[in-house]
Amino acid sequence: MPDPSSNPAPDIAVTPVMKRSGHVVMVAAAVENAVGTGRLAELVLTHEGIPGDRHAGFLRPADVRVPWFERHAPIQNERQLSIVSMEDLAVIAGNLGIERVEPEWLGANIAVEGVPDFSFLPRGTRLFFPSGAVLAVMGQNDPCRIAGAEVERHLGGQGGLALRFAAAAKRLRGVVAIVDRPGSIRGGEGFKLRIPEQWIWQG
Amino acid sequence: MPDPSSNPAPDIAVTPVMKRSGHVVMVAAAVENAVGTGRLAELVLTHEGIPGDRHAGFLRPADVRVPWFERHAPIQNERQLSIVSMEDLAVIAGNLGIERVEPEWLGANIAVEGVPDFSFLPRGTRLFFPSGAVLAVMGQNDPCRIAGAEVERHLGGQGGLALRFAAAAKRLRGVVAIVDRPGSIRGGEGFKLRIPEQWIWQG
Repeated sequence: MPDPSSNPAPDIAVTPVMKRSGHVVMVAAAVENAVGTGRLAELVLTHEGIPGDRHAGFLRPADVRVPWFERHAPIQNERQLSIVSMEDLAVIAGNLGIERVEPEWLGANIAVEGVPDFSFLPRGTRLFFPSGAVLAVMGQNDPCRIAGAEVERHLGGQGGLALRFAAAAKRLRGVVAIVDRPGSIRGGEGFKLRIPEQWIWQG
Repeated sequence: MPDPSSNPAPDIAVTPVMKRSGHVVMVAAAVENAVGTGRLAELVLTHEGIPGDRHAGFLRPADVRVPWFERHAPIQNERQLSIVSMEDLAVIAGNLGIERVEPEWLGANIAVEGVPDFSFLPRGTRLFFPSGAVLAVMGQNDPCRIAGAEVERHLGGQGGLALRFAAAAKRLRGVVAIVDRPGSIRGGEGFKLRIPEQWIWQG
């Protein structure tokens, strides 16, 4: 019989921590209450996100994405920032049969390149930027009709694109993140990633 | 060649959302600055955790658990609450060759039973309590020497237990969580769990 102290944990395969790097293509912030964002040279972040942005704050009102909460009830804000990858946007564009999808159309705050399967980065992944800013990935972003309508608008109203967007962008829409350490992020700079241990709970 | 729009996402297996239920065995809060906690009838929670507790707050100072941050730098607080399972504590006790490990010795705020592999619940798991309180699991808790010393103290100073604790409790030490919706949690009540979609990022 094996010594129980040599095998204390359940028999669940744990994928070790991984470290990677990527490149910031652009940063952007909301323009008043528009869905889309506007490109900036630099994004300056506090612990609550982008100061003055409608997604800033430690808390946010519950919405249709979290139907188990009463609508508008204050909950922890996992959505201070939206981050997409240029590679995923190219796949969305291909799925829609259009030339390109710009990160600003989707309201992204940061667009990156060089990280494979970016939209699948697990919760708890940390992104480290040269200024000392650190972001924590809180989950996959969901495509929505509003973003689809914005894509359609930028393409001069091609009929039906808004409806097709959700399917075309599923699991390609990037991640949402919060600010673990304040700082600034600039287009053109590199960043490091720390992907935490991963496993599948079978329950 | 397959229609790309029918398979827009990378080929990563996604484990669907799961729903489970469990039972609260006891709740406890810190007693002044002691490591251990003291049992209560009810835990009353705000969005910042347990009011007045040293682990309360939207932010916390970085410590040895997150060595990539400057020590004491304020970071997002993922550790408002510590939750353990009676099943995992029984395995720790077995690994140490002692009769029992009480949740209070480890500074746990909530002890549960009925959830298999509790310490492996993935980040983003939500726990729903009858009052309307909802907790969000933020990660596996790490065993530490301090908790081990507390176990040793409760057992009258059996030599070496503190040192053996970290190995004996690895991946059995429960999870840390934050308060997504305020409310109260009571010993003896049931709760529901929502385990989010899971996958392994291979990068």
